Amino acid sequence: MQQYKETERIEAFSDGVFGIAMTLLVLEIRVPNHEAVGAQGLLHALAAIWPSYLAFSTSFATILVMWVKHHWTFTLILKSDHAFLYWNGLLLFLVTFLPFPTAVLADYLLHPEAKVAANLYTGTVLAISLAFDGLWRYASKRGRLLAGDAIKAKKNELEQITKQYRFGPPLYLAAFGVSFVSEGASIGFCLLVALFFAIRGWPMKT
Amino acid sequence: MQQYKETERIEAFSDGVFGIAMTLLVLEIRVPNHEAVGAQGLLHALAAIWPSYLAFSTSFATILVMWVKHHWTFTLILKSDHAFLYWNGLLLFLVTFLPFPTAVLADYLLHPEAKVAANLYTGTVLAISLAFDGLWRYASKRGRLLAGDAIKAKKNELEQITKQYRFGPPLYLAAFGVSFVSEGASIGFCLLVALFFAIRGWPMKT
Amino acid sequence: MQQYKETERIEAFSDGVFGIAMTLLVLEIRVPNHEAVGAQGLLHALAAIWPSYLAFSTSFATILVMWVKHHWTFTLILKSDHAFLYWNGLLLFLVTFLPFPTAVLADYLLHPEAKVAANLYTGTVLAISLAFDGLWRYASKRGRLLAGDAIKAKKNELEQITKQYRFGPPLYLAAFGVSFVSEGASIGFCLLVALFFAIRGWPMKT
Amino acid sequence: MQQYKETERIEAFSDGVFGIAMTLLVLEIRVPNHEAVGAQGLLHALAAIWPSYLAFSTSFATILVMWVKHHWTFTLILKSDHAFLYWNGLLLFLVTFLPFPTAVLADYLLHPEAKVAANLYTGTVLAISLAFDGLWRYASKRGRLLAGDAIKAKKNELEQITKQYRFGPPLYLAAFGVSFVSEGASIGFCLLVALFFAIRGWPMKT
Repeated sequence: MQQYKETERIEAFSDGVFGIAMTLLVLEIRVPNHEAVGAQGLLHALAAIWPSYLAFSTSFATILVMWVKHHWTFTLILKSDHAFLYWNGLLLFLVTFLPFPTAVLADYLLHPEAKVAANLYTGTVLAISLAFDGLWRYASKRGRLLAGDAIKAKKNELEQITKQYRFGPPLYLAAFGVSFVSEGASIGFCLLVALFFAIRGWPMKT
Repeated sequence: MQQYKETERIEAFSDGVFGIAMTLLVLEIRVPNHEAVGAQGLLHALAAIWPSYLAFSTSFATILVMWVKHHWTFTLILKSDHAFLYWNGLLLFLVTFLPFPTAVLADYLLHPEAKVAANLYTGTVLAISLAFDGLWRYASKRGRLLAGDAIKAKKNELEQITKQYRFGPPLYLAAFGVSFVSEGASIGFCLLVALFFAIRGWPMKT
Repeated sequence: MQQYKETERIEAFSDGVFGIAMTLLVLEIRVPNHEAVGAQGLLHALAAIWPSYLAFSTSFATILVMWVKHHWTFTLILKSDHAFLYWNGLLLFLVTFLPFPTAVLADYLLHPEAKVAANLYTGTVLAISLAFDGLWRYASKRGRLLAGDAIKAKKNELEQITKQYRFGPPLYLAAFGVSFVSEGASIGFCLLVALFFAIRGWPMKT
Repeated sequence: MQQYKETERIEAFSDGVFGIAMTLLVLEIRVPNHEAVGAQGLLHALAAIWPSYLAFSTSFATILVMWVKHHWTFTLILKSDHAFLYWNGLLLFLVTFLPFPTAVLADYLLHPEAKVAANLYTGTVLAISLAFDGLWRYASKRGRLLAGDAIKAKKNELEQITKQYRFGPPLYLAAFGVSFVSEGASIGFCLLVALFFAIRGWPMKT
């Protein structure tokens, strides 16, 4: 089997799904209708849908950070097997689903039942981070799918990734917990987590 | 002709179509409207659209399994001709169409006429499996489009694929038949078939 | 400049746009609403939207044939320049626009003003074929962007492509003309043209 | 780290996002509804939505020019780091968002509050050009991420890109300013800028 080609095609396919999911998010921001605008003005109507911008930005940043992580991880993975394809498939399933909780959040963040929307949203992000963790554990266990040279020369990098993968689930579990107390805080927290990874790079990279 | 590049581009194009079809499925899950939620609560409204989740999951899993199969098949195919491009085009046509039966199913699974929706859905999946079978028969007939070394060294693998391709149409024909009796059972059966392939890997792989 | 990489990236980008345009077409097929179905039954309601299936199939087949043609053309083109990028951009612009005339056609094929919808549809397909012709003329003029070996060894193939490119515009001009007489015949003609290329392969290939 | 592969995957991912954003734009052109058509005829109804065609064309041309620029820039960039990934991510974020201002513009260009829509649209395009400028400054600063040979052999080309990147923000700042005076002029100006780059190629290319 052409191992190099194997992971390359999985990467390309995953990139496509990540990219489409990110781009579809914009369809969730609805153009204000003419009646609403007639009453309050377009500027006000555009400002009033800020939950849509927040939901769009949070999901975009989250998927982007996931993609960068996926990208970095795949520089070390050179082999693939059926179980790995389906771990990756589970991850893509959840990423593909994210536009729905995003749309629910955008629509219900200012509604009395906003907490339910925040539960669904943070719960989905938590599930994504767990699937990512599972993917990495499966691929890295006893160096199963890693490049031979990566195991030796990049031991440090491997340990860093392993440590960092452990960060995701507890952080998003916290966001899920917070969503039962304050929906706004839980979404802000998700956005901050994504921006933190985006600005700081990977926390323990030395 | 640069044969290697030929199939690579077809693979990349097919991946794009598979990936987009999978990702578009989420647009079919509609955010509950505020009136419905006012009456019954958001949690209840989100639970009430379970047919959407079922239809989304079944179609996602089915397309993913098809993609993995397509991926595996293409590791053995190194040549391409016009007829092959159109066999692949027919397959993509049906995969691209699948979001429509999925949306019909999500909308009508709890409707008195659910059987018609299930007929359409299982019939489309049956057609996809038949197109896949035709693609493989065309490509593998007398090793027409296969890599030279694949024909010799991978005889066992070739026979496995051929055997497995024979599984799809009868299984989905059964699902189509069941859809006339019980719409729920026919969809559950489609989901189980996809999960079975996903978890077990390829049945006869030794 | 890395010429090989140049055209490869343009091909990949074009494939993405062709693939997404093809896949988005399905969003134009609307799920029948519950009121309509209540009156006439789901099977009848699904049958009543046959113009959507016809429009979807015709556009899918047309884009697919265009993609195969694009694919074949690019096996001979190894260089790129700014003008070529924008010829390709014009082609993609028109392909990207096609889902709109397709949706108009699906919605108005049974309406008294169906001719206007057919004019728009066939006119757009005609414009696509003209853009394709322009792209090829630009690329092939005095072998401008062709692979050096292609010019010598594949003279026959080059002449074939040139001849075939001349087929598209007159055929689609005829379809545009027919659309003023019979909207149904003009769409059927477009579908037949696409299927003819699909089944027969390239007419003069020897 | 496999540097070549690094930027290649970023390019492919960016291409996907550019391509999907361009293709989604068409969903913003709404099929005229049967009531409106009944009153004025389909031809008139199709003509009446010319702001949708203008907005679609302007955004398509703008994203296409951005893609060509991105493409040209990446032929010189061979390395990548985390900060660069996020500069590119910011660019993609804004490109992904563009379909929303495009839809607002299409819907409100003939509305008394068209200026607000034009402010939002030109402001978004300005932000895209600023992100592009930031990306290039980061990548080119002291040749940070450039190919070694590019720094020496292509000094001229590098200076050209740098000069041209300085063109974007002031031009789009002007468009943003004009949008407070005349919404029509500001959009026409954006379209002209894109067409100018498209037809003339890069202004200072010698």
